[in-house]
Amino acid sequence: MPSKARPHSTVTLTTDFGLADHFVGVMKGVILGICPDARIVDITHECRAFDIAGAAFTLAQAYRYFPPKTVHVVVVDPGVGTKRRPILVEAAGQLFVGPDNGVFGAILSREAHRVRAISNHKYLLEPVSQTFHGRDIFAPVAAHLAKGIAPGGIGKPVRDYFLSQSLKPERLNGVWTGTVLAVDRFGNIVTNFLASDFSKAFAGAFEIAVGGRRITRLASNYEQPGLFAIVGSSGHIEISTRQGSAAKLLGILPGAPVKLKA
Amino acid sequence: MPSKARPHSTVTLTTDFGLADHFVGVMKGVILGICPDARIVDITHECRAFDIAGAAFTLAQAYRYFPPKTVHVVVVDPGVGTKRRPILVEAAGQLFVGPDNGVFGAILSREAHRVRAISNHKYLLEPVSQTFHGRDIFAPVAAHLAKGIAPGGIGKPVRDYFLSQSLKPERLNGVWTGTVLAVDRFGNIVTNFLASDFSKAFAGAFEIAVGGRRITRLASNYEQPGLFAIVGSSGHIEISTRQGSAAKLLGILPGAPVKLKA
Amino acid sequence: MPSKARPHSTVTLTTDFGLADHFVGVMKGVILGICPDARIVDITHECRAFDIAGAAFTLAQAYRYFPPKTVHVVVVDPGVGTKRRPILVEAAGQLFVGPDNGVFGAILSREAHRVRAISNHKYLLEPVSQTFHGRDIFAPVAAHLAKGIAPGGIGKPVRDYFLSQSLKPERLNGVWTGTVLAVDRFGNIVTNFLASDFSKAFAGAFEIAVGGRRITRLASNYEQPGLFAIVGSSGHIEISTRQGSAAKLLGILPGAPVKLKA
Repeated sequence: MPSKARPHSTVTLTTDFGLADHFVGVMKGVILGICPDARIVDITHECRAFDIAGAAFTLAQAYRYFPPKTVHVVVVDPGVGTKRRPILVEAAGQLFVGPDNGVFGAILSREAHRVRAISNHKYLLEPVSQTFHGRDIFAPVAAHLAKGIAPGGIGKPVRDYFLSQSLKPERLNGVWTGTVLAVDRFGNIVTNFLASDFSKAFAGAFEIAVGGRRITRLASNYEQPGLFAIVGSSGHIEISTRQGSAAKLLGILPGAPVKLKA
Repeated sequence: MPSKARPHSTVTLTTDFGLADHFVGVMKGVILGICPDARIVDITHECRAFDIAGAAFTLAQAYRYFPPKTVHVVVVDPGVGTKRRPILVEAAGQLFVGPDNGVFGAILSREAHRVRAISNHKYLLEPVSQTFHGRDIFAPVAAHLAKGIAPGGIGKPVRDYFLSQSLKPERLNGVWTGTVLAVDRFGNIVTNFLASDFSKAFAGAFEIAVGGRRITRLASNYEQPGLFAIVGSSGHIEISTRQGSAAKLLGILPGAPVKLKA
Repeated sequence: MPSKARPHSTVTLTTDFGLADHFVGVMKGVILGICPDARIVDITHECRAFDIAGAAFTLAQAYRYFPPKTVHVVVVDPGVGTKRRPILVEAAGQLFVGPDNGVFGAILSREAHRVRAISNHKYLLEPVSQTFHGRDIFAPVAAHLAKGIAPGGIGKPVRDYFLSQSLKPERLNGVWTGTVLAVDRFGNIVTNFLASDFSKAFAGAFEIAVGGRRITRLASNYEQPGLFAIVGSSGHIEISTRQGSAAKLLGILPGAPVKLKA
């Protein structure tokens, strides 16, 4: 009989460690040493070094597609070894383990949640280094959670955790101003305009201004001429072009402004 | 007692998604949500964006080394959201899931096969987006197959699927003309000359012309001076040089012509 | 009931194959075909091509964090197809499979060990190619070990294996001279000074000279101004700077000299 998967047995990893060093392999070794049945999934290790907002965006796009009780580990952590706390977040029927620096911002603003400070040394890899909490704190805590330890055993709830600001578009003089959240591998420009929030605007005539260009067409697939808006797979409005990089065409990086008139 | 692996429980992924975005992680989340026991293996996510021929070559080199009933998913799909169909191929005792755009060309030309159009919405992630069929169609269909759903439940056989042209060398005026299929990480130039088809030629005196140079030696390992031909691990004749990139030396990219006199 | 992990069932991979080609996927297919329950973990596939010392360093940082009886496979193998032998190393309660070219140097110099020449053709993928022993020798041998075959079944012990030289700092005229072992993704410069060997030196006044600069401060985390020394997660002294690359600042590559006065 095939074994039934246990609760919590999927563990995802999102880091800025890259894939050239031993860091990611070491975290997986630690996890398997504690929880041999864990199914470890890489979300990405190619977050830009120290890019907390980028990691938050990537995780926000991914977590909903994982099974209930998945444990998500995020290690983008420029403050490793300082007083920033390691935390455990319970939200959306899943668990999130990482530094209290904003990497869970999108989840905390979107989902009902409880946040705990990780404090029970029993579940850490001692002695805890000053430079690699992914190995010494986050991986072992995630593995113990995957193995079935209750969140309450990890640490007590806290209220003074880091909340990043909302990233919704704002209206000024009849014009909506938003921002570029991300540029993906294909050069698609992901904006913070959610299609579901602006369905009326995009049903009629509209004009998006970004990178000095105006976009007035909403396409339903990529086989279109020129630049166009399209509802991306995450529900955000994206700016794209056929088999090319819209971001390169427009010289756009994450953080660039996007305006919408409709 | 260790569990016995079920039929179909290995799922491989070959895409042009890269590893920096959330796309690959999301596909894996979807698969594990449907089939918690799936063993997911990345073949590569570094196919060049939109490079259907490159993905077809990579998969063709890999599938035979996987266990029977492996489900291979390929998502190199510039036509996502257009009328190109999602298909399921049964061949070589394995299953192949992806767009009907030629990514399975090498398998279809080499193996007895049956092709089905994926049409049963019961096995898709609804609502299906226009831009990410990897998540909404190919991953969930692969996971259901890995879980044991019979191919017949996915959709009906079709006959008008896409067949890419043969890539065998051709003879003209006593000279065989072939092409460069791929350049690997080490700069080895992989030609479409199969050693087994040209065993007589390479047993005697021969001359390969590629990138303006002539190669007349067949080596049995890489510890050789200069440029040489060698039977690569896939059975193709490759052009190589010791601890260096033959492709850079010769300025060669995939698609370049290769001539053989023997 | 969840299955209990078998002995030897974790297999790690460390190669210079990169992630763009089919090589890594093929090795995993071979492993799963032989040992369907193997848990395969990538340490890295981004070793520089043919960089034996770099692969040795990466593995040395990682193996201790894996469960007992893990099988580690290393394929950085410029001599593939020549007379260099494939070997199996038993050390530290784990198994190591790869070419006899120094990739296991750090383990052989650090741990009690037994080395066997891989010779039993029963466990190879025949016919063995001249160019891809990762697929034809190392992956299948590792899979059979993961499945429970005893090391003695793979081949007989040998004594004339390759031992790389020690990489410890040396003292000359009151100055310790060491070397840069690695530069990691963040630009941290990893030296061969082990903090535990030089605890007295770093407890008092010291001066490290590297890349034309002098470093006199030992930091406990990265949130510090300027260049500083820090005890890295591997126990080595590293030279770092806040959210930037110390290696780029100093123009340092692996192999550069490092001097210590204390």
